Amino acid sequence: MTSTPDTSPAESINASSQPSDIEIARAARKRPITEIAAKLSIPEDAVLPYGRDKAKIDRDFLAGLGAPKGKLVLVTAVTPTPAGEGKTTTTVGLGDGLAQLGHRVAICLREASLGPCFGMKGGAAGGGHAQVVPMEEMNLHFTGDFHAITSAHNLLSAMIDNHIHWGNALDIDVRRVTWRRVMDMNDRALRDVATGLGGPGNGFPRQTGFDITVASEIMAILCLATDLEDLQERLGRIIIGYTRDKTPVTARELKADGAMVVLLREAMQPNLVQTLENTPAFVHGGPFANIAHGCNSVAATRAALQLADIVVTEAGFGADLGAEKFFDIKCRKAGLSPDVAVLVATVRSLKMSGGVARTDLGTEDAEAVTRGCANLTRHLGNLRGFGLPVVVAINRFDGDTEAELAALRDHVEALGAEVHLCTHWADGGAGAQALAARVAELAASDEVNFTPLYPDDMGLFEKIETVARRIYGAEGVDADAKIRNQLAEWEAAGFGDLPVCMAKTQYSFSADPSLRGAPEGFRVPLREVRLSAGAGFVVAICGEIMTMPGLPRHPAAESIGLNAEGEVVGLF
Amino acid sequence: MTSTPDTSPAESINASSQPSDIEIARAARKRPITEIAAKLSIPEDAVLPYGRDKAKIDRDFLAGLGAPKGKLVLVTAVTPTPAGEGKTTTTVGLGDGLAQLGHRVAICLREASLGPCFGMKGGAAGGGHAQVVPMEEMNLHFTGDFHAITSAHNLLSAMIDNHIHWGNALDIDVRRVTWRRVMDMNDRALRDVATGLGGPGNGFPRQTGFDITVASEIMAILCLATDLEDLQERLGRIIIGYTRDKTPVTARELKADGAMVVLLREAMQPNLVQTLENTPAFVHGGPFANIAHGCNSVAATRAALQLADIVVTEAGFGADLGAEKFFDIKCRKAGLSPDVAVLVATVRSLKMSGGVARTDLGTEDAEAVTRGCANLTRHLGNLRGFGLPVVVAINRFDGDTEAELAALRDHVEALGAEVHLCTHWADGGAGAQALAARVAELAASDEVNFTPLYPDDMGLFEKIETVARRIYGAEGVDADAKIRNQLAEWEAAGFGDLPVCMAKTQYSFSADPSLRGAPEGFRVPLREVRLSAGAGFVVAICGEIMTMPGLPRHPAAESIGLNAEGEVVGLF
Repeated sequence: MTSTPDTSPAESINASSQPSDIEIARAARKRPITEIAAKLSIPEDAVLPYGRDKAKIDRDFLAGLGAPKGKLVLVTAVTPTPAGEGKTTTTVGLGDGLAQLGHRVAICLREASLGPCFGMKGGAAGGGHAQVVPMEEMNLHFTGDFHAITSAHNLLSAMIDNHIHWGNALDIDVRRVTWRRVMDMNDRALRDVATGLGGPGNGFPRQTGFDITVASEIMAILCLATDLEDLQERLGRIIIGYTRDKTPVTARELKADGAMVVLLREAMQPNLVQTLENTPAFVHGGPFANIAHGCNSVAATRAALQLADIVVTEAGFGADLGAEKFFDIKCRKAGLSPDVAVLVATVRSLKMSGGVARTDLGTEDAEAVTRGCANLTRHLGNLRGFGLPVVVAINRFDGDTEAELAALRDHVEALGAEVHLCTHWADGGAGAQALAARVAELAASDEVNFTPLYPDDMGLFEKIETVARRIYGAEGVDADAKIRNQLAEWEAAGFGDLPVCMAKTQYSFSADPSLRGAPEGFRVPLREVRLSAGAGFVVAICGEIMTMPGLPRHPAAESIGLNAEGEVVGLF
Repeated sequence: MTSTPDTSPAESINASSQPSDIEIARAARKRPITEIAAKLSIPEDAVLPYGRDKAKIDRDFLAGLGAPKGKLVLVTAVTPTPAGEGKTTTTVGLGDGLAQLGHRVAICLREASLGPCFGMKGGAAGGGHAQVVPMEEMNLHFTGDFHAITSAHNLLSAMIDNHIHWGNALDIDVRRVTWRRVMDMNDRALRDVATGLGGPGNGFPRQTGFDITVASEIMAILCLATDLEDLQERLGRIIIGYTRDKTPVTARELKADGAMVVLLREAMQPNLVQTLENTPAFVHGGPFANIAHGCNSVAATRAALQLADIVVTEAGFGADLGAEKFFDIKCRKAGLSPDVAVLVATVRSLKMSGGVARTDLGTEDAEAVTRGCANLTRHLGNLRGFGLPVVVAINRFDGDTEAELAALRDHVEALGAEVHLCTHWADGGAGAQALAARVAELAASDEVNFTPLYPDDMGLFEKIETVARRIYGAEGVDADAKIRNQLAEWEAAGFGDLPVCMAKTQYSFSADPSLRGAPEGFRVPLREVRLSAGAGFVVAICGEIMTMPGLPRHPAAESIGLNAEGEVVGLF
């Protein structure tokens, strides 16, 4: 399982003579952010600007708007190639397409993480002519949300060690502190550290480590909290570790929840930016899609649904991971009911599912596309199983041949499903208008009968098994007694109602990235479970999880700088 | 020497029936920030808003303004009590007083550090009716400058360990890496840590630690850099450690300077806020006043001097520390020429200098005031030695008696100096109008003949001795051969031209905090020297320096939270 958020711009593979993403983004004719807000009837005094092109929307204004009424469209994808299939680009293109058709639309995306930009090149929000801007700020400090999360997380960490230093009234076991520290930086040297060295004045030595900020439970909490009160409740429920007799100790017992919510107060307000075609886009929150649920914030999605008639959003990785968590964690817990799902497929991804090596994806192979479509078939069936109408969107790449595209289209139509060829990367919203028209029709038709995969009151292990069998196609889940006992203990402690957050490779339905397509006859090994009591889910780990990335041999940072015009170079 | 920035609100000691600082701040009639900018003829399109009440000023606009023409007033103080003497409050009151007299005025202050707010109560910017607002944001994330500094600092740290991990082509000695990491948090457990544990995948283990962000050399660099080019030059010069043969290794050799300047690009632009009386205030940068120079940024001071006719600023701690560094480091290096110095004195501080215990400061003792005035005499002489006209401002506290005030006034007048009794804490700018009128007169008179204390080409040890003898009144400086050799090595390496940055207790002219008043016959022990090659000074450490504070037994964080109205409580 990779540790990088799946925001890499798939379209950078497109080798046309089109200008680069950053060139297109810099040439954008941005409108003042208050004008973008006005498209959603947000008055100027509810717009809190951050520089010229970014704003937060005032929480009091949003609180006064009443229940969300818009239709919610999820963009998800087949099992991806390492470069991604353009979910974000399709989300933006679809949003722009809907706007061109006259719909009052809003887009909801995740924020980018700062740290990874200095390792590999930064992730654009979309690509080509389907992007959200301002691209540079969104990849750097943006409106400071992630810095606020870093501060809140590390304040709790400092208060834990401070409590132990001053007498440890709560009897926290220094060997059982599970709460680590975070930094928004790729820094492998911080994965495993010993703190409190240097004598009694520096506290008690213990072994701990740092995660990257997007992996913080507080990131997941911020994205699931409905308001400041709920935020504080959730922060208070965070389990920071255990006493010597293994009783959980919470952030509330350390009296840290109030100060943390103060640090997060501004960050809880959704950020508004715009697409290249000046469509409003909420970009807010960015939890890891493996150890957390990988969607943008509930606060932003709710705001968008209050303000727009139709809202387009996305979830991380393929539909087995992102869409399942979107439905079973985010929608279930926030009371959201999605109306349509768009399944993004590319010729490249299906060729890879059909057994073609990554390095050979440039060679025409329509038969491999057909073979790989077994992957699409399973994803499509899964999405229909949630009770949603589904449309397949082919995100066209330059190298796709007519024969390959026909193979894909034929397969989808044979499944009785709708398919639209989209060219938003090259053409902007105009390239996704047919898709947009059909999505709008389906959203209005109320053909939806949304049902989460499993009920709240199912046992935790059974929930994990249900996802593995019904979504992944596994024969079962293997877990040793220690893990099963742990789950039973949490059920006894009142956490049995929580949904499960599956952590698994995004490159296969199974836990083995080499099993492509639609594998069968496999079992899922459950290696570890973690309780995120504040976020409100149990993480089921079925593979390696790296929560602090490292920098490569030649980090992008070495090439990043300002040119003579003061523009950033090397970031993209 | 304390580790907390000297921004504690002296006036909280005032026990009048006046509302609290936060109550006054919340009741402020703030004007839109564009209107405040317009007072300095800053056009709306050069104002980059951050929320409703904060803005950054566009660098391109400032670059087009031409040379600074305003008069520069420094507010400094006698040797302080632990609560401080109200330099910031006097700076604000004087600024408001000048505005009331019709001057086109700007105030320049430092930003507050986030971390200490969760230990002790947060520091107001000023106090009573002489404050800068918005108070809460300024104590929390403000415009994100400190977060940007934290990111830039830690990116360099990550690149150091990453370089070593991938082959260490520069032959960095892991035992001699001097560059640490930073966090804007009081966290004693991070002072001394071992990183890179857990096996080869996590890099090479080594011992290091974290400082608080305000102690970062990057904070000092940001505050001394004149523009982005100079910023990058300075960042590139940072010495991160040494090779096995003790050759310095710089950030430029690691190719980190470009990415760091990108992270700091927005942070380099000065922040604009306002006083309670709607006077423009630049609040930008906040380097530690002991291991760094403790003044607001050169960028902000220059901007203010370009835009206003008269600029009021302050420097940390007493005049022996803050003013000396302001003159010898900031003004010398930035080519600034101060016009007037205001020496803030309080009855309380002079009583303490006169031998009264801190707990007895509430008891009338005019003779102690007179005895303590020896301290004022030395500071006054020092300031005059820099060639500046000096005015003494008595910052009146509720408990001061007429006899004590008279003793102080008589002493100053006997020295042939001017003195003004100020009541800005209670009365706002009106309480500092007499002071303001005289300061404006002196600034216009061109009576100044500013001369730094020592020439650039004096030897480094001689510079340290010069400060100790001529400013502190010491008989000399004691340093062992190792330290003298180190200074000689730096001179040979081309760093001999740098000014020295003295790190010493603020509670005495000497290095011994118990020697009050105007001690004589003492020597200053020089314990350690550090080279800040990017900031451009040599730190001379004459005592303990704590670069990462800890939280107290009952940290303020435990009481901080939001009330039912969503207002922050417990922060002040």
